[in-house]
Amino acid sequence: MTTAESLMRHALSLAAHGPAFGVNPQVGCVLVNAAGEIVAEGWHRGAGTPHAEVDALSKIPDATGLTAYVTLEPCNHTGRTGPCSVALHAAGVSRVLYSVSDPGDASSGGAAYLRSQGVSVEAGLLADEVSEFIHPWLTAARLGRPFVTVKWASSLDGRAAADDGTSQWITGTAARQRVHEQRSRADAIVVGTGTVIADDPSLTARGDGGELMEHQPIPVVIGERGLPEGSKLSRDPRGVIVTGSRDLAGILSELWDRDIRRIFVEGGPTLASAFIAAGLVDEYLVYLAPVVIGGSKTATTDVGVATMSDLGRLTITSVERLGEDLLVVARPIGE
Amino acid sequence: MTTAESLMRHALSLAAHGPAFGVNPQVGCVLVNAAGEIVAEGWHRGAGTPHAEVDALSKIPDATGLTAYVTLEPCNHTGRTGPCSVALHAAGVSRVLYSVSDPGDASSGGAAYLRSQGVSVEAGLLADEVSEFIHPWLTAARLGRPFVTVKWASSLDGRAAADDGTSQWITGTAARQRVHEQRSRADAIVVGTGTVIADDPSLTARGDGGELMEHQPIPVVIGERGLPEGSKLSRDPRGVIVTGSRDLAGILSELWDRDIRRIFVEGGPTLASAFIAAGLVDEYLVYLAPVVIGGSKTATTDVGVATMSDLGRLTITSVERLGEDLLVVARPIGE
Ligand SMILES: NC(=O)c1ccc[n+]([C@@H]2O[C@H](COP(=O)([O-])OP(=O)(O)OC[C@H]3O[C@@H](n4cnc5c(N)ncnc54)[C@H](OP(=O)(O)O)[C@@H]3O)[C@@H](O)[C@H]2O)c1
Ligand SMILES: NC(=O)c1ccc[n+]([C@@H]2O[C@H](COP(=O)([O-])OP(=O)(O)OC[C@H]3O[C@@H](n4cnc5c(N)ncnc54)[C@H](OP(=O)(O)O)[C@@H]3O)[C@@H](O)[C@H]2O)c1
Repeated sequence: MTTAESLMRHALSLAAHGPAFGVNPQVGCVLVNAAGEIVAEGWHRGAGTPHAEVDALSKIPDATGLTAYVTLEPCNHTGRTGPCSVALHAAGVSRVLYSVSDPGDASSGGAAYLRSQGVSVEAGLLADEVSEFIHPWLTAARLGRPFVTVKWASSLDGRAAADDGTSQWITGTAARQRVHEQRSRADAIVVGTGTVIADDPSLTARGDGGELMEHQPIPVVIGERGLPEGSKLSRDPRGVIVTGSRDLAGILSELWDRDIRRIFVEGGPTLASAFIAAGLVDEYLVYLAPVVIGGSKTATTDVGVATMSDLGRLTITSVERLGEDLLVVARPIGE
Repeated sequence: MTTAESLMRHALSLAAHGPAFGVNPQVGCVLVNAAGEIVAEGWHRGAGTPHAEVDALSKIPDATGLTAYVTLEPCNHTGRTGPCSVALHAAGVSRVLYSVSDPGDASSGGAAYLRSQGVSVEAGLLADEVSEFIHPWLTAARLGRPFVTVKWASSLDGRAAADDGTSQWITGTAARQRVHEQRSRADAIVVGTGTVIADDPSLTARGDGGELMEHQPIPVVIGERGLPEGSKLSRDPRGVIVTGSRDLAGILSELWDRDIRRIFVEGGPTLASAFIAAGLVDEYLVYLAPVVIGGSKTATTDVGVATMSDLGRLTITSVERLGEDLLVVARPIGE
């Protein structure tokens, strides 16, 4: 590993301190002097707070002649904060290494601006690792819709419940705790009206003592029947988005307009299958418990596959044991 | 690791050269002199051939004062070969360390015989590892019926085929090749009449060039309809066992009487589910392909679970990536 790589990897580890949800990606930055020593660190803490570069610059009085390592191309755009490209140049930074280019129409152009001001700029260092790290954000930016994760928990033979509808608990505590952590990384948690009517869920992200986690995704209910009166979600302090619709693409576009970039679809089987059939799933989280249930309560219903040649292939990106269970993560090939 | 353990582990590695099928377990033996050096190695090559101890003794002219490390208690029984306990003592072996006790009524008692002849005997070294290695054989001996492996291949959501019945190929070549290797470790390969009628399979164990493997399991067809005329299995040189019955326990008992100790149940869904519902499955091999199929063609049908409290829990003993696919191996808890 070269020094440049290890500095960028450090910037990436800083990025991970920021939130996985929200309109902005997780970004990290280190400022390095001529001796190769880190003199300041920064990362982005979410929409409305300083970007990673500005956060790092704020730690030191003078950045003249320093090199900046940033995981994403510095933005060139005045939003709730000023452009980072301008801030870096104004502070005297003479060289910028960034990993991944900014795909945004409004925010890109930072590299070009910096070069035009005589700052030396290099792109692409550790690009695969950084792209993978912000994959949901990059995918959402590319597709212009929220990144869609579909999660289900099933037996080894793909059943989400026993024939009488009981399903507590297919998976164990470690798997269920992981689901709460995953909820808290999303902007919205999405269910069908069928699940709301059957289960009256609270859809909160909770810690293992039952306490609410700091970030709570907004609950979204999809389906023409809307929200049953008196349901827990109707009294939820986060507010609940009741779509009253089955038009998934239209709903994703409305969620995008509300700054939602990452949604966690928790079911039930009908809604999850509708997302799959519509080709709108970017990531599958399949929790498999070591049981065989059989019967009629499948975790998916009809996903639009009539014959094998209809199949879209996925890649399994990870397999993890959680207590007695397995978590299989998969993605459409090419995404 | 002590020297004794490493010697027993070496005996275990020798055991693995023998066949996994057949009435006898895989057993390995090393003979060691006073300096702790291995002077002979042996293993069992299958029914009718010398046991591991006799095989090792045959390699040297004189075993006086040697120590034998054997993975299984030396047998005390004259079957197609003489008792190993007698052979060890007669050859002058003065000390025997074995790992796992022989559970057989007829064959056990070797340790007691050896002690009665003044040979020093110790049991239990590396017992967990060795028990795990011969788990199918020990389980069959304990239950007095063949060890039953049920295999299926499905999508992540538990479908064995698309709605039109097409299923070629859900899993990739690495997974399919592994299935052939697993077939060749069994005494019999078992299918329902439904699969024979639908697919007319040959049920051979083949290498990746399509060539027949050395050991071929006997095909067994379960179901009242028997074997359709003109099917490939009816011309099979191995002979085919046509049960004409749905009585699984009765069939297992007949197979046991034919020296069948390990069967590989390849489906279809109805037969696999009947084995599960009857509580007759000792091992599950679940191949999961990175696809989501949905629809009606589930890999299991009804397995006798009406509500969650009916569930028998399994333990996942291994998870392996095979090409793009996963192989999950599970066992009933406590087995
Ligand atoms: N094991 C798990 O991981 C898990 C997770 C969640 C739920 N569940 C279980 O799943 C069961 C509920 O299953 P479910 O399938 O009925 O519930 P669901 O998927 O939550 O809701 C189904 C409803 O969603 C609406 N919908 C919205 N968009 C749709 C579209 N594009 N296509 C079709 N329908 C659409 C329809 O209702 P409208 O008529 O209102 O449009 C449909 O009836 C409950 O028993 C719950 O416990 C299990
Ligand atoms: N993906 C895979 O891994 C895989 C593997 C094998 C087969 N398959 C597919 O599975 C399909 C066939 O499925 P299937 O379920 O009809 O076939 P099956 O399980 O092979 O055969 C079902 C038949 O088995 C007999 N049977 C024997 N013992 C039984 C018992 N205790 N309880 C109930 N029935 C018993 C019954 O026939 P009788 O009326 O004769 O008694 C029953 O109709 C084929 O399309 C095949 O391609 C897939």
